[in-house]
Amino acid sequence: MSPPFIANADVTAVNAASPPVISPVSSECSELQAHRIDQPLPFPSVLKNPFKFVDGPPSSAAGNPDQIAKLFPSLFGQPSAMLVPSDSSLVQMNQKLKIGVVLSGGQAPGGHNVISGLFDYLQDHAKGSTLYGFKGGPAGIMKCKYVELTAEFIYPYRNQGGFDMICSGRDKIETLEQFKQAEEAAQKLDLDGLVVIGGDDSNTNACLLAEYLRSKNMKTRVVGCPKTIDGDLKCKEVPTSFGFDTACKIYSEMIGNVMVDARSTGKYYHFVRLMGRAASHITLECALQTHPNITIIGEEVAVKKLTLKNVTEYIVDVISKRSELGYNYGVILIPEGLIDFIPEVQQLIAELNEILAHDNVDEGGIWKKKLTTQSHHLFEFFPQAIQEQLLLERDPHGNVQVAKIETEKMLIQMVETELEKRRLEGAYNGGQFKGQSHFFGYEGRCGLPTNFDSAYCYALGYTAGALLQSGKTGLISSVGNLAAPVEDWTAGGTALTSLMDVERRHGKFKPVIKKAMVELGGAPFKKFALFREQWAVENQYISPGPIQFVGPTSNVLNHTLLLELGAQA
Amino acid sequence: MSPPFIANADVTAVNAASPPVISPVSSECSELQAHRIDQPLPFPSVLKNPFKFVDGPPSSAAGNPDQIAKLFPSLFGQPSAMLVPSDSSLVQMNQKLKIGVVLSGGQAPGGHNVISGLFDYLQDHAKGSTLYGFKGGPAGIMKCKYVELTAEFIYPYRNQGGFDMICSGRDKIETLEQFKQAEEAAQKLDLDGLVVIGGDDSNTNACLLAEYLRSKNMKTRVVGCPKTIDGDLKCKEVPTSFGFDTACKIYSEMIGNVMVDARSTGKYYHFVRLMGRAASHITLECALQTHPNITIIGEEVAVKKLTLKNVTEYIVDVISKRSELGYNYGVILIPEGLIDFIPEVQQLIAELNEILAHDNVDEGGIWKKKLTTQSHHLFEFFPQAIQEQLLLERDPHGNVQVAKIETEKMLIQMVETELEKRRLEGAYNGGQFKGQSHFFGYEGRCGLPTNFDSAYCYALGYTAGALLQSGKTGLISSVGNLAAPVEDWTAGGTALTSLMDVERRHGKFKPVIKKAMVELGGAPFKKFALFREQWAVENQYISPGPIQFVGPTSNVLNHTLLLELGAQA
Repeated sequence: MSPPFIANADVTAVNAASPPVISPVSSECSELQAHRIDQPLPFPSVLKNPFKFVDGPPSSAAGNPDQIAKLFPSLFGQPSAMLVPSDSSLVQMNQKLKIGVVLSGGQAPGGHNVISGLFDYLQDHAKGSTLYGFKGGPAGIMKCKYVELTAEFIYPYRNQGGFDMICSGRDKIETLEQFKQAEEAAQKLDLDGLVVIGGDDSNTNACLLAEYLRSKNMKTRVVGCPKTIDGDLKCKEVPTSFGFDTACKIYSEMIGNVMVDARSTGKYYHFVRLMGRAASHITLECALQTHPNITIIGEEVAVKKLTLKNVTEYIVDVISKRSELGYNYGVILIPEGLIDFIPEVQQLIAELNEILAHDNVDEGGIWKKKLTTQSHHLFEFFPQAIQEQLLLERDPHGNVQVAKIETEKMLIQMVETELEKRRLEGAYNGGQFKGQSHFFGYEGRCGLPTNFDSAYCYALGYTAGALLQSGKTGLISSVGNLAAPVEDWTAGGTALTSLMDVERRHGKFKPVIKKAMVELGGAPFKKFALFREQWAVENQYISPGPIQFVGPTSNVLNHTLLLELGAQA
Repeated sequence: MSPPFIANADVTAVNAASPPVISPVSSECSELQAHRIDQPLPFPSVLKNPFKFVDGPPSSAAGNPDQIAKLFPSLFGQPSAMLVPSDSSLVQMNQKLKIGVVLSGGQAPGGHNVISGLFDYLQDHAKGSTLYGFKGGPAGIMKCKYVELTAEFIYPYRNQGGFDMICSGRDKIETLEQFKQAEEAAQKLDLDGLVVIGGDDSNTNACLLAEYLRSKNMKTRVVGCPKTIDGDLKCKEVPTSFGFDTACKIYSEMIGNVMVDARSTGKYYHFVRLMGRAASHITLECALQTHPNITIIGEEVAVKKLTLKNVTEYIVDVISKRSELGYNYGVILIPEGLIDFIPEVQQLIAELNEILAHDNVDEGGIWKKKLTTQSHHLFEFFPQAIQEQLLLERDPHGNVQVAKIETEKMLIQMVETELEKRRLEGAYNGGQFKGQSHFFGYEGRCGLPTNFDSAYCYALGYTAGALLQSGKTGLISSVGNLAAPVEDWTAGGTALTSLMDVERRHGKFKPVIKKAMVELGGAPFKKFALFREQWAVENQYISPGPIQFVGPTSNVLNHTLLLELGAQA
């Protein structure tokens, strides 16, 4: 007899805690959340047994090593460190540590597991240590706002999405003043180490802080962890940033559902804009998972110097072809950063930023005369709603907020106009075009982490603990061999300076970890390019469905990572 | 050793078929889809063994029985029929049937399983029967566009979302001309029966068609099945419409993710509009699953005759209270149909429909003088984008398309204005308000059906087959006792006329199945009302996470159904 269908999480129901939990925020959770908390995680063998670090050769930089060497006199050239089995543990087991941890920037599923991995490392290898969680991101360090993370405090957040254990923020530690504040916090808490969980900017700043603290002869070491759903913080030794796997699967679930809807109804073109900032990794991954009819990859638009008109015409060409085949529906993926990739739009935005910084925008539109002819034409080419967004939605620095521009709606209007034009010219006599717009973003940043992200983050945090205990600083926690069973994953640290190049800003060299953009020669894009014409006209939609945590599909890994690892043909 | 993380559905990968599949649409699917196809379903015991029908007492109507009796002279008063175990099968096992099936209206997860249940019934009890699927909704009947549904054809759609097996449409069979077309199709295919899978309107028309065919002495019987994610087609014998369970869980997954995001970031108010048409069942169910800070229930707004200003002020009051507690974030649920529930808005829309039917809208706004003072004020009170939507987005009948109005964005603007006003008056000195808008709709209509919807739909389809084979017509397939294990579910048919009342339209009585709206005295609303003040100021967010198909949370049932069945305290 099968079990009856039972009540869903009740308002009086499941308390997350088996051990008593005193948590300021998460007193209630769903049955699935509760079930996930106690889920045992697979774990790299090398972290299970006694280990030691083996250093590699001296490192260089991603570009301009001379400048990076000047910016990081103490840290430049540090080797990568790899964890290997050892007869006896490298570090003294009776050494108690004081470690701080901070979540920096936008949420990514798995952040809580980095913290629990770090905590468990300290429990396993440095019993009696103290872990402080800085609250609300880097500002928490500067203001020395923290909470002591105990077993009871951490417990309800194990394998959970979100950053709500200690919350996050977008402040940055980058000025001398701010470094001094961080120094004071480190002194006050007597920190042996600090783990910064963040993206490219946060890890760059983590390395600058490591350099600063070392130059001050402080004992506090700084180690980074690669976080971002955008997937643009990665290199050979850091094959992926955490959260990308979960976010892409959540978006792909929604895209797959919309595809089945499109095919069932037969009358809508769904324009789906996907979060992911500058890079199009999320869009590309979702395309590989779901096979949409059209996918715009920002990096390709930039390389090929396409105009908005080119993009619109490409979409309309596919719509025409599909209409001839009897399909007046489809699904189109658009990366959040698209508009910023188009050279003519970049030019317009630069001009707008300049004009709006100095002038008022008069209702009569006289200000537009300050635009170049090309930018003026482009501005007038935009639908009114987009014009307004370009003028009104600006960040605290006065810059246009690309993420707020509803590119999907803009493209729908442009496609409508182009189809109408072709219809009048007799070049299109297909079905009626109906666009539906979607933006998938916030839904994906805080989902329950997949089995992969749960295990990956836990290993990253655990490894970060090992790096700090062995005195490493200025490294990013690196877990590799990800296509293999978790037991065979590798663990170590990579010199953050080795990921850096410089950019010249305001006459000064500034170190940056270069964002890893979609490479047109890379395996994921090449696979996409091989199939996209087929996907355009045939309907080979794939609906991945909701993320599963048990059963045969719970351990599937994203295409991008597997293709980049060469593990998928 | 744990399994390695493996490749996700490859472009060359999983073919749905174990038996060879020749399907026009679904040649590829994800691993999870493939896995679901072969998932064995639990099944009511009464359908497993020999059974017979037992009729209940004569039925009446939901209202105006005299009028309903006149409109349905052959069918009025039919008893409900209940399936009970029998020593020998009621019907001749060697009788071959010809049955048609049609999907009508918007998608709902589980539709394919109604068809597979019906198909399997015919295989089990009327071997050699033929099942025709009418393509593209009721228009497929009128044009006699159909496909023969074979085991191979149906196979890849088992337990899958969407209506793409035979697609759907919104056409209606309601005029005499259209009845004649349906009659011709039934004659041409020599149909013994027709199953109409649809919502309230479609089932009303199914019953009218049943009456018409009986009056013509046709052998073709017509049986309905209760479909709609909106959850507004239900009664005592039909405890829920299929698709509601899945759609609410998909929306709740997204809402839960957004909640965790809101709490992690601490700076956004997420305004989430939810599909569901006129009724607020989906919104209420999602509130019970996730505990948002604010939930607007359209039916309550209507009963209490609230104005838009009232609703705005209620939201702002909660935001103020939360700000005092240090929370400058939150999640707010809004039903799709809200705007239509507000008496002053209904009045404005009625006036606009009238004016726009006869006049042009001049740019100068002289047309506005035709509005009553109250409506004119309200119109001017709306943000410009909403004004444009009210004027531009109209359905083929010229009516305002409520679903297209972005109520969530409208409310954000109104809340901003009200907060600014209070700030100037010194009545609000809390944090900055930042609204983020979402619309969850299409993502939920075509998801993989939950275990519940999969089993419920299969039983509905199987029962529909039994009803037709035993000569029933004008009934809706009814599966009950849903809080019990599937084996103990009941099966039968309910007289469609017993669900009907009449409405007077254009001077004529028209039969309608009354939409089941949210009842303020009902258990689901009462539970919500009991907790909403607590949810408003405390953060008791619940994140249900993605739908699971195996494991301990895969058989949870939605709150609304359980509360209405009295199975949840």
